[in-house]
This record gives sequence, C-alpha cells and structure tokens, in this order.
Amino acid sequence: MSDIQTQFVKNILSGAKNNPNSCGSAFAPSNIALSKYWGKRDADLNLPINSSLSVSLGALGTRTEIRRTDCDAVYLNGLKVDGHDSFALRTLEFLHLFPDLGTSGFEVRTENNIPTAAGLASSASGFAALVMALDDLAGWGLDKKKLSMLARLGSGSASRSVFDGFVQWNAGENPDGTDSYAEPLSRDWKEFRIGILEISKARKPVGSRDGMNRTVQTSELYKSWPAQANRDIETIRAAIDAKDFPTLGKTAENNALAMHATMMSAWPPLIYLQSESIEAIHQVQRLRSDGLEVYLTIDAGPNIKLLFLEKNTEGVSEAFPGLQCIQPFE
Amino acid sequence: MSDIQTQFVKNILSGAKNNPNSCGSAFAPSNIALSKYWGKRDADLNLPINSSLSVSLGALGTRTEIRRTDCDAVYLNGLKVDGHDSFALRTLEFLHLFPDLGTSGFEVRTENNIPTAAGLASSASGFAALVMALDDLAGWGLDKKKLSMLARLGSGSASRSVFDGFVQWNAGENPDGTDSYAEPLSRDWKEFRIGILEISKARKPVGSRDGMNRTVQTSELYKSWPAQANRDIETIRAAIDAKDFPTLGKTAENNALAMHATMMSAWPPLIYLQSESIEAIHQVQRLRSDGLEVYLTIDAGPNIKLLFLEKNTEGVSEAFPGLQCIQPFE
Repeated sequence: MSDIQTQFVKNILSGAKNNPNSCGSAFAPSNIALSKYWGKRDADLNLPINSSLSVSLGALGTRTEIRRTDCDAVYLNGLKVDGHDSFALRTLEFLHLFPDLGTSGFEVRTENNIPTAAGLASSASGFAALVMALDDLAGWGLDKKKLSMLARLGSGSASRSVFDGFVQWNAGENPDGTDSYAEPLSRDWKEFRIGILEISKARKPVGSRDGMNRTVQTSELYKSWPAQANRDIETIRAAIDAKDFPTLGKTAENNALAMHATMMSAWPPLIYLQSESIEAIHQVQRLRSDGLEVYLTIDAGPNIKLLFLEKNTEGVSEAFPGLQCIQPFE
Repeated sequence: MSDIQTQFVKNILSGAKNNPNSCGSAFAPSNIALSKYWGKRDADLNLPINSSLSVSLGALGTRTEIRRTDCDAVYLNGLKVDGHDSFALRTLEFLHLFPDLGTSGFEVRTENNIPTAAGLASSASGFAALVMALDDLAGWGLDKKKLSMLARLGSGSASRSVFDGFVQWNAGENPDGTDSYAEPLSRDWKEFRIGILEISKARKPVGSRDGMNRTVQTSELYKSWPAQANRDIETIRAAIDAKDFPTLGKTAENNALAMHATMMSAWPPLIYLQSESIEAIHQVQRLRSDGLEVYLTIDAGPNIKLLFLEKNTEGVSEAFPGLQCIQPFE
C-alpha cells in the first residue's frame, strides 16, 4: 500500500455515492487474454507497457461476499485462509487502500470455480469481484470504467474481468493511471469455444508480477514485444468484427508464444512451459496440418487453452481427452 | 547454383595455385555456437544478419576424401547415398560451383563421427571438410580465410569449422560477401567441457535454412535479435579472455534460448524443442540453483549441449546419465 495508491483511490472515489449495505456481493468472470498483458510501466499503479485484449469466461470466475467485522477474516472456497498466506495478505492489503468504510476489519468470502494461481487468472476475477463487492457494500455506485481502474490496482488483468465478452484494456499514457482501463467490445460470438487443458494445478514457481519484471529488465527481445502487442490487438479486433476465426486464432497463438518467447529469453530463463505443454503445442500444430481449425493460447503458466468453434468441438475433444470446454457467450 | 555463386567462387580462386593431386582429403571439426547464427541477409552467398561465435569440437567432426571420376558418387559413413537424397544433392551442387577441376564427376567419401542432421551441425564440419579436401585435390593452397568463405557457401556455420578452438564468424557488411569469414580466437581452455545430451537422432522437420527464413520473415521479436547477438559476442569474447566461465555459460545459454524464442514467435510456430528438451532445460536450472555450475546451449534441433568445467564432470554426468562428454581443447 503506497501513498500513490491511496491518492489514486481517493481520486476515483471523489464524488461517489454513499449508500452502505450490511453485505456486498458480486460475481466476476475469469478472462483469457488473446493478446497478452506482459510488462509494467508503473508498479504502484499497475500500469501496463502494452494494451491487451481478452475474452471473459462467462460463468467461470469468482463470487465474493464482503462484510464489516472487528477483525479481518478471509475465506477461500469455504475454508478460512491463514492470515500469513499470500492470498489473504493481497486481499487485505488491497482492502486497506479504502480507509473510509467505517469498519476496523472485513470478512471476505471468496468462491472460485477455477483453479487458483494455476495460470487461469483467478487473481483477475478475484480482484474484479472484490472491487464490485466493495462497491456494493459501500454503495458507491461507481461506473464500470472506475471499477476497472480500481480492480487494476489489485491485479492488472483484473481490469478486464469487470466486463463480459471480448474486452480491451487500454494501456493508457498518463503517469497518473486515469486513462488505463478496460472497455467492452463485442459480446456476440455464440460458436466461440475455449478448451482448458490442465497440465498442472501447482502454484507457479515465479508469479506473474516478478516474471514480467524479470522479463522487462533482462530480455533483449522484449524490446520488440510492445510493437507486436499493438499490432495483434488491431488484428484481433478486426477479426472479431469480421468473425474471421482463423485470423483470430493464428494471431492469438502467435501472441501467446511470443510472450513466452520474451520470458524464455529473460535471465534467469523463465520457462513456465512443462514437457506436457510442449507436447500439446506440437499436437495442436499436427491437428492443424491435418485440417482441424484449432489454435492455442497460454498464460504465464503451463496450462494450455485451446481456441476453436462449436463445429469442431468433437474433433478437438477426441484429440484431447479430459478437455474442459467453455462457452464464453452462452 | 547461381551466377552470383559461380562469380564469387571465381573471385576467391583468382590467383590460386594449381598443383593437383589424385586424391584430396581433409578433416574438419564440428562446432557448437555459443552465440548463434540465425538469419540470412543474402541467400545466394549465405551472408548472415549477425556475427556468431563457436567452439570447435576437437576430434568430433567430418573426414572427407574426394577423387575425380566419370560420374558422381557420394558415400556417407561407408554407404553409397542415393543421388536423389538431399545430402548427395547438396554435396554435388556445391562441387559443381567449381567448373575448372578437369573432371566430369567426383567420388566423395564422407565419414561423420557425429549424428547427421540432428542439430549437431554435421553440415558445418561436412562443408568445411569438403572445401579443404577440394583444396587438397586441386592444390590451390588457399588460406583459411578463403577456405572459410568457400565453406560458407555450402552452409553458413561451415565457415567456422575450418578452425579449431574458439572461432568468430564476422557477419561482414559488403554485399559481395568478401568480408564475411571466420577467424580463430583463443585455442586454450583445457578445462572446458561440452556434454551432448541426445534427445533425438531424427532429421529435423524443418531445416535450418527454411527455419531462419521463416523467422526473419514472420517473427516480430526477431527485430531485436541482431542487437542481442552483437552484445553476446562481445561478452563471450571478454569471458574467454578472462576465463570467466559463469559469464560465458550464462551468456551462451541466454543467447540460445533467445534464438529459440525468435523461432517460437515465428508463424507457423517453429518449435524444435521436444518435451525431453524442456525437461533438460528445467533440470539445468535446478542443478544451478543447487550450486552446480552448468549451462546449456541448443542449436536448431531438440538436442541439448551442456557447458561445464572439468571439475564438475562427475556432478553433471550423474545428473545426466548417458551424457557424451567432449573435451574441445585436448
């Protein structure tokens, strides 16, 4: 918690309403970036070097309830979390950015229906749900742009999880962070499917925050990343508008592999991919050579997310037994 | 075979002696680049975008004998190679760049004591040995600089295999290719070891030539590669002079992973690494965390080459059973 963050929160909340409830609750979807966020220009305000574009996962995400209490208590999926656990620490540190809520503590109850910290961006839906639940508790009545900026303080990609459908998080330029927020794009592509291929439920050895700092500081190739990100967002936006799935898939896959390429060229090397991830990447290429229209994306972890259309669900599921299939637009 | 190549050969041979023998023979070592060659600025003359730096593998390499015959015949490791095989085609196409040898054909006998085309740069030692054997056959008496430039026409990295020890191939700037040749650096680091961890003997699905063209044409991150290569060569040269092994190892590993990163960010993705390669990369990182001074490099293939000093041979060999250990300076 820094003075800069406290001041940023104060600015966002200036002019907010004050209709407090005894309990605040909200749901936020997880999101998967098709053009990735990788690299911060400001650590305090979680300002990114590049814009990013994601698709929210519909009903997969985080539901959070929050109440005023005498002392802090955090529950995750029904179990009380130790106060020294990083999940509890990050949650409470974030809540203490908001000093004027008339309570000495919070009880936070969070339910994820996605694995925590396994590269499925639970911190994105987590902080988005927390901010929206807090808005509900305090009765601020903030608009989504402001909710997006507050969620961003908790976790960059959380800025995108306040919206459904395709979402773009604009990097912005201002040092004060007031032009760095997400906005919704199309919410209509019923045939769009995402398949989650879970390689590992284990916590990442290096978190995204440390991983991107290491990449920005040590990878020479990273210097070309922002240009690729900007180009890919434009291409994907146009592909969404035109419902041009091969272009969307190809661009998203290339973008994800380029992000992992910047990590791999960091020092010490940052390789989230495991042997099973490489097998899956090779298999997706083979399937595509055989004419099956399937692409992949990978966040900062070992798990693979497949992108395909409804008509190819059977072919993709046969090739990847145990695939969890998500319909983001239904 | 292009006019440009024929003209280049003619220029190199102008002023050469003429003391023909009935048989020419030569040995050239394989080499492993510590700072990689990846990307051509001229396909005809095999001119690289970036300079590179390698270590030759001592007694591991290619021995070639060449004789004049009525019709072409190519033998590889004692077996006659089909004339339609790419090895025979590349060898003969190269030989036909030299029209004034007073013969209608060649018998070429090549012995590799390294796996062919498995990422162990057999084409490098192969073309270097071929050029030196040809020089022996024709009695040209060319200096090593000229031999390096001729070998380059067959395979870029062959330009380095005309020397032992550490070798730098200067990219050069001239469009005519006359300033793009290798030169020897230090030949003295007795404790230097290379361990070959063979993942696969299979031929690469995409050859280096096509692979680098695809990378240059489609990878945005490749734009940052030449700057990294230039920086890494300076760092490694200084590390060789100072016998600073950790700096050499770290820089070589980072350089190799950055090269693979440029491939991974090409389209279609070019991923030479297999699941066992990723396991080995992770294991090297773990060993280093545990205090063992071992680094790796990887050419355009799945095999891993470990870099370490004599004193750590036992530790490295225990961690990687079946490792083939090379002493480049003995």
